[in-house]
Amino acid sequence: MSNNAQDRIVKPTPITGYPELLPEERLVELAWLDRIRTVFESYGFCSIETPSVEAVEVLAAKGGDVDKEVYGLKRLNEDDPEKGAKVALHYDMTVPMARYVAQHYNDLVFPFKRYQMQKAWRGERPQEGRFREFMQCDIDVVDNDEVSLHFDAELPAIVYEILSSLNVPITLHVNNRKILEGFYRGLGISDPVSAIRIADKLDKIGPDGVRKGLVEEVGLSPAAAQSCLDLASIRATDTSFAQRVRALGVTNELLDKGLEELVFVMEHLAHLPPGAVTADMAIARGFDYYTGTVYEGKFAAYPDYPSICSGGRYDNLVSSYLKRKLPGVGLSIGLTRIFSKLLKEGVLPVGPKSPTQVLVAFPPDGDRKLVLATAQKLRARGIKVEAFHEDRKWKVQLGYASKKGIPYVWFPPEGEATAHNVKNMITGEQVHADPDLWFLPS
Amino acid sequence: MSNNAQDRIVKPTPITGYPELLPEERLVELAWLDRIRTVFESYGFCSIETPSVEAVEVLAAKGGDVDKEVYGLKRLNEDDPEKGAKVALHYDMTVPMARYVAQHYNDLVFPFKRYQMQKAWRGERPQEGRFREFMQCDIDVVDNDEVSLHFDAELPAIVYEILSSLNVPITLHVNNRKILEGFYRGLGISDPVSAIRIADKLDKIGPDGVRKGLVEEVGLSPAAAQSCLDLASIRATDTSFAQRVRALGVTNELLDKGLEELVFVMEHLAHLPPGAVTADMAIARGFDYYTGTVYEGKFAAYPDYPSICSGGRYDNLVSSYLKRKLPGVGLSIGLTRIFSKLLKEGVLPVGPKSPTQVLVAFPPDGDRKLVLATAQKLRARGIKVEAFHEDRKWKVQLGYASKKGIPYVWFPPEGEATAHNVKNMITGEQVHADPDLWFLPS
Repeated sequence: MSNNAQDRIVKPTPITGYPELLPEERLVELAWLDRIRTVFESYGFCSIETPSVEAVEVLAAKGGDVDKEVYGLKRLNEDDPEKGAKVALHYDMTVPMARYVAQHYNDLVFPFKRYQMQKAWRGERPQEGRFREFMQCDIDVVDNDEVSLHFDAELPAIVYEILSSLNVPITLHVNNRKILEGFYRGLGISDPVSAIRIADKLDKIGPDGVRKGLVEEVGLSPAAAQSCLDLASIRATDTSFAQRVRALGVTNELLDKGLEELVFVMEHLAHLPPGAVTADMAIARGFDYYTGTVYEGKFAAYPDYPSICSGGRYDNLVSSYLKRKLPGVGLSIGLTRIFSKLLKEGVLPVGPKSPTQVLVAFPPDGDRKLVLATAQKLRARGIKVEAFHEDRKWKVQLGYASKKGIPYVWFPPEGEATAHNVKNMITGEQVHADPDLWFLPS
Repeated sequence: MSNNAQDRIVKPTPITGYPELLPEERLVELAWLDRIRTVFESYGFCSIETPSVEAVEVLAAKGGDVDKEVYGLKRLNEDDPEKGAKVALHYDMTVPMARYVAQHYNDLVFPFKRYQMQKAWRGERPQEGRFREFMQCDIDVVDNDEVSLHFDAELPAIVYEILSSLNVPITLHVNNRKILEGFYRGLGISDPVSAIRIADKLDKIGPDGVRKGLVEEVGLSPAAAQSCLDLASIRATDTSFAQRVRALGVTNELLDKGLEELVFVMEHLAHLPPGAVTADMAIARGFDYYTGTVYEGKFAAYPDYPSICSGGRYDNLVSSYLKRKLPGVGLSIGLTRIFSKLLKEGVLPVGPKSPTQVLVAFPPDGDRKLVLATAQKLRARGIKVEAFHEDRKWKVQLGYASKKGIPYVWFPPEGEATAHNVKNMITGEQVHADPDLWFLPS
């Protein structure tokens, strides 16, 4: 790297798919992150962080159509350019969490209840709601042999509580893969996974597309394909879906088990506002690793926008590492997806450009030590304080506070005076105040 | 990706250089991150986050011997394997911050005071204190044309306050590149940057190595090389260094300016405990972009461990993007480096495996709704509560609380009883309590 490289003018341009916030937007995002973490912890979930990368073989050992979207890492001056990447950025937090549980199995207490708020990366073509780098807030429970159905109901209630408190109304759709697989098996379909994949495209290709796919690709009879479509049309905000599924006349043990599980979940979400949760037989979720409950949440206000939280139950994710069954259930909040949409729609309460609550002004020919000591006295009581850095005109200092949205400006005494004054920048009111006693009006 | 890939057993192994914490360790790290953020914000600094990647040309336009350590990103199935990476993971937060300031110039208020707590990546050979992925906590001030020397003193005071409050005693060494460059120019050295680079290796190659390098590589006379070594030997915990530098008999305008700046900084750090800050003429810092104050902090307890916080003043970092002078000064706390060392030394207060404060037990044949409602009542007052998920033996439930380090177990009434009870898991004491009124003993 030559030293004169510094002399080039390189105009910076945003990198597509990698969102970046202004300070005033970031302040709101931070408040959201705090809120999400607080609620996760209020239910006793512990935080973990996994590295941004996993071994390529770990990422490749998992289901889902994601391999083409995974970013491998290689040093820019790697000696052997032919050598493939050995590590790659994770594309979600579920696969890393499964690896974490397997690796640290003996140090964890089960049921292992963890949350994980980290960035993930996918090499997708960027479009509305799809980013190459995005923040996910995941919450999962993993247990030995069996994970209690209790958590299938607790997790969506937690996510609902979070999003409601952030003023993000959602519609949460819940299904159970056992219902789909059992129903399809009951119809005599030998490859239900392929059929589920086609049925999952209902939103995108419509009922005729699904019918065609089921008949031509999976070899269903037109009548069986129609039954699949009939199943996918069933939705209910209570447990009445079970009756309607049974009325389709298909019988299968796995189907019964799935209905029983989804009834439990719906019953234990009944305390949420009417319509918040819908049992929806059209929901399948793309990842093959789901084996029971599946979730998909959307903005109530923007139903065409991609799902903003999703997840489900997986029985065999960790067991690709250990000869032990460690099923789990989890939900993921797509924070970047939610936040970027609300920002674009202009509905976020974006306020000041700084967390500062008080600016201590620098009086003309003032004593820097008095300015700093005053600021430190206020800070000692938890107030966020900037000490203005130089003897500049009042206009400059007040203009600085005003541009940053700082609500109070503090004036240490000038010359022979001894009284401090504090000015409310919104009302303009200015009063005497003692830096050892003054509190921020609440 | 074939479906039966899931059937392979892939034993997970840690990836060298990518640290990962257990939940009980992560709880301590989270408390540290909260503390660091709280102090940064108490001085009115705003948070920003930049993407994990920058354009390769942005990273390459900056000084420093880092290009060989930068990780480029390429999708695993990239069509054209010959094509080089266009974006790469950032190796610090200074270069991304400079790009951010240039890109969002019109939306920022100056002096721009920001903190940034993010991961960075370097393809170094992992060794003690050196990681491939690590968390940095940076604080910088950037201003138009000129940045007040006030901040050269404020930033180390902030970092000192943070590390003291985390019980991490440090020794902070401060110097000014103008002293070095001015002194070297005063000696008639035409390429002071090369000379500074050699002198910076004093710790590694010793005085004889530095003397040899200065004579053989930069062409100094043995007497001039000795003067450089004499300069590098000057250290003081007050402003007496200036007198001693001047006593070496070299005169130069830039040297005078540097001494004046460092005297200001030392005077304004005089309120810190004696010995906390040392003016140290041997400190140069590797990055070429520093032009004034430079900082290097080490563990007081482990002086041979690499520096745990560092930074300095740069005049021309942002100006490679804009035809405008935007100098800055910053300091970076190497969180991963600090945390990993203290963890290894066993001196961190690692406690419970979960944030949970109360476990609401599930009584025999109990009512799940009563368990959940009790937990929700406690949560409503900010208590972190797990509801035990199933009707299991008391022994199992108490064992779970005990293994996780949960301090209180709550027993909802059983059968005909109406009283709730709460058990202190440390003292064993159990008392009646009302879920609508009970507070965590402080």
